[in-house]
Parts: sequence; structure tokens; C-alpha cells
Amino acid sequence: MSLPDRVELCDVGPRDGFQYEDRFIPTNLKVEIITALADAGLPRIQATSFVHPEWVPQMKDAEAVCARLPAREDVTYDGLVLNREGLERAHAAGLSHVDLSIATHDEHSRNNANRTVEKAVAQAEDMVHEARAHGLQVQMGFQTVFGYRAPGDTPLDQVVEMSRHFAERGVESISLADTTGLAHPRMIKDRVRAVRRGIGDTPLVLHLHDTRGLGLANVYAALQCGVDRFDTSLAGMGGCPFVEGATGNIPTEDTAYLLDELGIETGVDRSAVGDASLRIESFLDKTFPGKLHRLMQREGAVETAE
Amino acid sequence: MSLPDRVELCDVGPRDGFQYEDRFIPTNLKVEIITALADAGLPRIQATSFVHPEWVPQMKDAEAVCARLPAREDVTYDGLVLNREGLERAHAAGLSHVDLSIATHDEHSRNNANRTVEKAVAQAEDMVHEARAHGLQVQMGFQTVFGYRAPGDTPLDQVVEMSRHFAERGVESISLADTTGLAHPRMIKDRVRAVRRGIGDTPLVLHLHDTRGLGLANVYAALQCGVDRFDTSLAGMGGCPFVEGATGNIPTEDTAYLLDELGIETGVDRSAVGDASLRIESFLDKTFPGKLHRLMQREGAVETAE
Repeated sequence: MSLPDRVELCDVGPRDGFQYEDRFIPTNLKVEIITALADAGLPRIQATSFVHPEWVPQMKDAEAVCARLPAREDVTYDGLVLNREGLERAHAAGLSHVDLSIATHDEHSRNNANRTVEKAVAQAEDMVHEARAHGLQVQMGFQTVFGYRAPGDTPLDQVVEMSRHFAERGVESISLADTTGLAHPRMIKDRVRAVRRGIGDTPLVLHLHDTRGLGLANVYAALQCGVDRFDTSLAGMGGCPFVEGATGNIPTEDTAYLLDELGIETGVDRSAVGDASLRIESFLDKTFPGKLHRLMQREGAVETAE
Repeated sequence: MSLPDRVELCDVGPRDGFQYEDRFIPTNLKVEIITALADAGLPRIQATSFVHPEWVPQMKDAEAVCARLPAREDVTYDGLVLNREGLERAHAAGLSHVDLSIATHDEHSRNNANRTVEKAVAQAEDMVHEARAHGLQVQMGFQTVFGYRAPGDTPLDQVVEMSRHFAERGVESISLADTTGLAHPRMIKDRVRAVRRGIGDTPLVLHLHDTRGLGLANVYAALQCGVDRFDTSLAGMGGCPFVEGATGNIPTEDTAYLLDELGIETGVDRSAVGDASLRIESFLDKTFPGKLHRLMQREGAVETAE
């Protein structure tokens, strides 16, 4: 059971973390954090989302952020789009990669997006077609893949079929999200292997949440079945809008620590990511659940005190 | 690679959690929490420590706690002892099991206990002899087994030799502690296998910390090499005296969730443990890093609001 030699992390904090913050993060600071993440070696950054500014005021400056992304050949920037209008905006803003995201559990789809999964698939298929006509690469994301109300209550057959369906339509990658944090290592292995068999060589990304403390245990299980792309978020920002201190996205620094210690190359300087985490915490005057940046802060304080 | 069918958790919170609290927890409440943990199905509970009350005032009622432990054949209570005086106190208090704990890294031993590892081994050996003369079972614990200042900087040969040495002297079990939270899954596997080869059939216990977020990933790795006993702490209390909100011991509830979902029997009702966690948090007016009891609280609040 050999682990991958190299893993690609995508920091989704500038979208999935920032969007839950009530306090508006000035465009300058958004670009500063994204630049810091790029300088820290993140090969991919989810920079923003193109949603209606009345729904998510934090993302109202999506175009302004995109206009100021540092031009780097070694970094892929992507943006989340939920409808055709968002897709047109992302294209006009000059992005090369977009993320689509739909539910896989019917009840979740109806509750969250007021449509059946079947309808969501049809709409996403149209968007994939349009994105590719614009020359955009698409990461097709599926939500609540590991359960909606209980572990595994999302039908695996449906997830596999949806993954196969979009892989055949030429998406750049398939992303499986543990939206509700219900995955555990055994299920990770079962579902990843089943989806992998369905999508051939299409790259597979895992978007894991640490809601019940299993985020990095699930990463380790996924590595054991060959997964080499993960979404993470600086300081563990975002992924759970409900309660301050509750944990959602797995922290970029902590994940990089795990991978470093396993001898897996990421190219990420976790200390530099930690600096960015402390910067955004300082601006928002709150703490996020990641452990490594907190240790950095404490050790810095100890050094100062000595 | 099959996982164990059954795992035994020892809740160390009443010692390793409580001892870091400045506010004195009344004996009544200590006994209430210990009773709740026993009722929740914990097969083993570290109930107290016999240290000088001037060093750890929180533990000054060790005898009173022991006198009021609920008599149950299905629960083992143990107490930490650091010297011969503590051992005599534990014996007089009627405990059947004691925990000894010594450093394995020379610098750590000198800094923390002002003695070499060699001296610590000799002193512990005398205590094991005396404990067994009293009919006490001994769990022999080793600190910083996975590193002191950096991952793996504790010599593995020394750890294996110490483990073998005490296994041959008839201790009930050997416990390996990741005191500084520097372990990672690969090292867990390497070191557990090496120690296992040295100690034959003597039971092996892991005491893991979540300092860098890898606590449950390390549990998963340990399960993969057959470890079936772990120390945990309700709500993740304790294990790190330095900073509120920093994480030390792996939470009992979160660990039980992982094991439940992997199909491994523990006998632990994690919801009942969560109630005990909320009770002690309420008394101390603070929150601990475990995630499951926090989710329970939130879901309870949601239900109330609806």
C-alpha cells in the first residue's frame, strides 16, 4: 500500500472561508492573502465565487479580485459558479478554471437548491457544455457524497453514475465533497475506489470537512487508495457557517504537516501559510480551528517572552 | 490489513484533564463525572494521581475520590503515581491498578524530572517491584516516544529496550505516549511494530495527543497495525497545560465515533460521554476542543429553537 509521491492542495479559503464572514474583507486584503498563498507554494487557489451579491455580499468584488490576481504560471486560480450568469462572469473576468457543484442526495438538493438531482445534473451538463465552448476547464463537484443526514445515506450508485457521466463529458476533474463531515476512513476507501473505477483517468479531488474530527484520518485513508488532490483552507476557515469554533474545512497547514511527515511532496511552505492565517485572524478578530498556525503563534509568543 | 474487532478506551480526563484546571473541582463533581464515564461504558478510567498536593492542588482529594468510586466489576480504575510515596498512597486507597510514567528522551528527562533516563528506569524498576509485592497491576508508561523537540528525535532503540525491559518484569501493559504531539501515521506504524516485537504478548496502549491535528489519523494508523487500547479524554480535556483552546488528549467521544463507524466495538455510549463533557464545561465555564460534544450541544440548541 504505497502512498502518492506528490499531492496537490487547493486552498479554498479565499472563497469557502471568506464567504461565511459577515465583516467585509477589503479587496486589497483578499488579494494580499491570495498572493501570500501563491507565494507559499499552493499550486491551486479557489479565489472567489460568482454569485449574486445580494446572496453573498462578501463575494461582490469577484471581478476586482480576479483583475488583481498575481499572474503566475505555477498557480491555477479557479472560481465557483452556480449558474450560467456566474459562468459568464467568470469567463469575462479572465479565469481559466471554474468549479461547478451540485448535490447528490435528493433531499439535500431539494432543500438547498430547490431542484431534484436529475434537474441539477441536466443544468450542470448545459453549463459544462457552455464552459468548454468558452475554453474553460471545469472541476465538477458533488456535495454530500458521504452522507447527508447519516453516514452513507447518499446512494453510492448515484454518485458513481454522476461521476462517470461528467467524466465522459470532458471535465478537468471530479471533486467529492464531505459537506456534512460524515465520512470516515472505511467509507472513504469504499467510495473513492468505486468512483475511481467509474471515471478512468479523470483526476479525482477530495473536499473533506473536519466536523467530527476525522478530517485528517480521512486524508490518510484517501492517500492509501491513491488520492493525490485535496481541498484545504488556511487555518481551517469556512466549511461550516453555523457556529464559531466549529470546524469545517481541513486546515492547509495541518494537512501539509501530515503530508510532509509522510514524505509526500506538496511544495507548500506551511509556515508561510500560517503567517497568512494569523493575518486574516487578526483582521477578523477571531480564531479558526487549525492547530499549526495556533502553535506558531504560541511559539512565537514564547520566544518573545524569553 | 484487518482492524481489531474490539478496542478498549481508557478515559484519562479525571486525572490528565482535571489536573490542569486552576479552579478546584469539588470531590462530588469529580465522582459524578467518573460515575458518568463508567455508566457510559468506559472499561477503564484514570481516576486520579497521587502527587504532592502542593504541586497539584487539584489532586489533593485523591484518597477521597478513590473512597467513592462506584464499585463495578466491569470498570478498572487506575491512578498515576510518580514516586514510592504515591505508590503507598494508591495502595492504601485501595486501587488495584497504578500507572507509572517516565521519559525516554534524555534531555526531556533532565528538564522535566531532573534525572537521566537510566536513573528513571532504575527508580521505576524499584517501584514496579514494590507495586507487585503489594499485588498491584502496573501500566508502565513512556513519554515523548515519538519525539521531544522534533518528530522522531527520541532514539527508537532506547524505547524498544525499555519496553522489553519492563515487559520482562511483569507489568500489566506498556503505554507509549506522544507527549509533544509529534507523531504521524508512518512513525506510529514503525515504532509500534518495533515495540511490539520487543514485548511479546504484553498489552500495548497508545496515549496520543492532537497537538498538530493528527490525533485520529494516528489512531487509524495504529489500528492498522493492531493496537487495541487507547487513552482518551472526555471532550479532549487536558494533555496540554499551556494554552486554552490548544489541543492535547484525543477526545473520547470523537475517538468512539471513529471506532463506531469503522465497525469496531468499544461499548462506549458517546452521547453519554458528551453529556459529561458538557457538565464539566459548564462548571468550569470554558470549552474543550472535542467536536462531537460541541455538535451535540449545537444540535440540542437547534432542536430547542425549532
